[in-house]
Amino acid sequence: MTDYSIKDKVTIVGIGETRYYKAGQAPVSEFQLALEAIQKAVADAGLRIEDVDGFASYSDDRNDPTRLAGALGIPQIQFSNMHWGGGGGGMAGAVGNAAAAIVAGYAKHVVAFRALAQGQFGRFGQGHAGARVRGAQAYTAPYGLMSPAQMFAMRTQRFMYEHNISQEALAGIALASYKHAQRNPRAIMYGRPLTREAYDNSRWIVEPFHLFDCCQENDGSAAVVLTTTERARDLPHKPVYLMAAAQGSGYRQWVTAHNDPDYATSNFKTLAPRLFGMAGITPQDVDVAQIYENFTGGVLMSIVEHGFCTADEAEAFCTRGNLEWPEGNLPINTSGGNLAEAYMHGLELVLEGVRQLRGDSTCQVKDARVCLVAAGPMVSPVSNLLLRN
Amino acid sequence: MTDYSIKDKVTIVGIGETRYYKAGQAPVSEFQLALEAIQKAVADAGLRIEDVDGFASYSDDRNDPTRLAGALGIPQIQFSNMHWGGGGGGMAGAVGNAAAAIVAGYAKHVVAFRALAQGQFGRFGQGHAGARVRGAQAYTAPYGLMSPAQMFAMRTQRFMYEHNISQEALAGIALASYKHAQRNPRAIMYGRPLTREAYDNSRWIVEPFHLFDCCQENDGSAAVVLTTTERARDLPHKPVYLMAAAQGSGYRQWVTAHNDPDYATSNFKTLAPRLFGMAGITPQDVDVAQIYENFTGGVLMSIVEHGFCTADEAEAFCTRGNLEWPEGNLPINTSGGNLAEAYMHGLELVLEGVRQLRGDSTCQVKDARVCLVAAGPMVSPVSNLLLRN
Repeated sequence: MTDYSIKDKVTIVGIGETRYYKAGQAPVSEFQLALEAIQKAVADAGLRIEDVDGFASYSDDRNDPTRLAGALGIPQIQFSNMHWGGGGGGMAGAVGNAAAAIVAGYAKHVVAFRALAQGQFGRFGQGHAGARVRGAQAYTAPYGLMSPAQMFAMRTQRFMYEHNISQEALAGIALASYKHAQRNPRAIMYGRPLTREAYDNSRWIVEPFHLFDCCQENDGSAAVVLTTTERARDLPHKPVYLMAAAQGSGYRQWVTAHNDPDYATSNFKTLAPRLFGMAGITPQDVDVAQIYENFTGGVLMSIVEHGFCTADEAEAFCTRGNLEWPEGNLPINTSGGNLAEAYMHGLELVLEGVRQLRGDSTCQVKDARVCLVAAGPMVSPVSNLLLRN
Repeated sequence: MTDYSIKDKVTIVGIGETRYYKAGQAPVSEFQLALEAIQKAVADAGLRIEDVDGFASYSDDRNDPTRLAGALGIPQIQFSNMHWGGGGGGMAGAVGNAAAAIVAGYAKHVVAFRALAQGQFGRFGQGHAGARVRGAQAYTAPYGLMSPAQMFAMRTQRFMYEHNISQEALAGIALASYKHAQRNPRAIMYGRPLTREAYDNSRWIVEPFHLFDCCQENDGSAAVVLTTTERARDLPHKPVYLMAAAQGSGYRQWVTAHNDPDYATSNFKTLAPRLFGMAGITPQDVDVAQIYENFTGGVLMSIVEHGFCTADEAEAFCTRGNLEWPEGNLPINTSGGNLAEAYMHGLELVLEGVRQLRGDSTCQVKDARVCLVAAGPMVSPVSNLLLRN
């Protein structure tokens, strides 16, 4: 009987990132940022750049692997893959696709990466007055519903209304990220702590999102290297195994589908059971979580849909420091994440998951053994990973 | 020891296509064409549309799987993937990615598809006077080197010069495709045979490419369904197994890289040995081949780089009916392919490979057991498959 699974067959062996910059402030091109992060991740893995034979990214990445390979001196690429879909929903999917290529025997050392210098190209997903409107937007743009913040806000409002959740929960998520960033010198918000008063007094972007509920905009790049579990035994770092990966979408659960029959969802309802099923563990086995946050509302819904609490328990779960290191039951986004470390389209959250399982995070969860990584709640497709050491 | 391979673990169980139209003549949208081909492939597989849980395509496909799933009534997508790279180089890569997702345990019934109605959107890869020039094009557009035909012609000319190959070889490839299309009622060129005189008298597009060395431009859609080899046993058709899949690129071997140290190549030099290695067979075991042809030159170089003959033998190999059904030693593009069946960005060649191994091609190769499918020579990344029955 063939074993159709990636479980424990693939290992993350290297991580690397550039310095993170405020949007538009990178002194080099996005392509050069990608090269730097990839080189650092490969060096961290104890590999030579010529060992790399595959690349995976997501969300319309502009840094074509054949050009990357030419610039890096990589003799042959054996896998070159883009997770399909917008936003950060593919950040874990890129890692999952890299793992699939390894299990399939296509490639042996695959880099999943993301480089982002939106100041050099224009922002992904930005609404434009006068832009040509296509597809599903034809039904929403005439009403002024154009930006991701607006779309995610509507679903979050509905979720909060249905389950009697107040602004406290969103504040709890934002405050945890900013608290963790104060221990992380890589973070853009390092040295800039957030108080509850500042959160409350910050302007609304779209209700229920204050300014501090929204991700940063940054330039930089991050990368991870995956290989077979056999190969990983020869490499320097403590291995971080992929227990499971999932990607996809429920029925009509994409952010612009306002006729979604199940509107108030992060789109993880079908993925989370598959993910835990492949790994053979339960949410109770998770020690730390890295959950993509373009906006805090997606984190709230993801926590519920991954089974850490019920929707009716969500406000209590997200407040009173429960998401904070070191006291909380489920520390999240321990590097500061998209909100306060840097917006690398979430790939920086995968790196932080690896650090936690190597034992060298700046907010190290004691004896962390299992980390959940969840990508891009509410976009479609979404994706997630379970990592262990 | 983990078996890192797809070999024989995945099976193609369904094929489907729309009627093929001349470019711009489809009576419905590209999205509707995609829906029709997918529904037909799923019906051909003996599956219900709700069984589909993954989609793979390539080359900036515009038909987002989450929208397809919504329109088709598919309850959840578990894989959603785009092979990275331009043109037809990803047509076998999409099938390979679908296979990887199945081996990885992400999805069970994955559709690889391509819908193309370029008249509705503008042609992929077309050069435009006055267009903004980006990336590698900045070095070639000022000299008037803009269209795919020009770029592929230069590499082909070099290959023909180095190996003393005349126009005879290209004519042999074009005539084989047109001959095969005369037996295929689906083909756009059915009922329109090509004579050698008409080939010679047709206008140059770019030397060495006459009009008939160039692919069609069409509207339509094609799709194949893949599943596990275990699951395939319950389904109606004779199974077509994936023996191997490969994708990738050699060093700097993309079509616009005119500083490629090995310029006169189809980019299959590194892939072909990997492909045959995974399958555990040699080129002599191949009974029939489907080789992507935007232009005949890529077929010529692919035949050599897959080991069917040496470069110096290539002219003899491609002439005197050697590529033609039923007498030739290696019948190619037995449906008419991109040149004479329809330009579905090569995915129609995968369908024809399946037909050959089911035994129901309109140019059925007697006792065909192994079929090579090669995608998009000279683009980067390229990809290929070995199928068996």
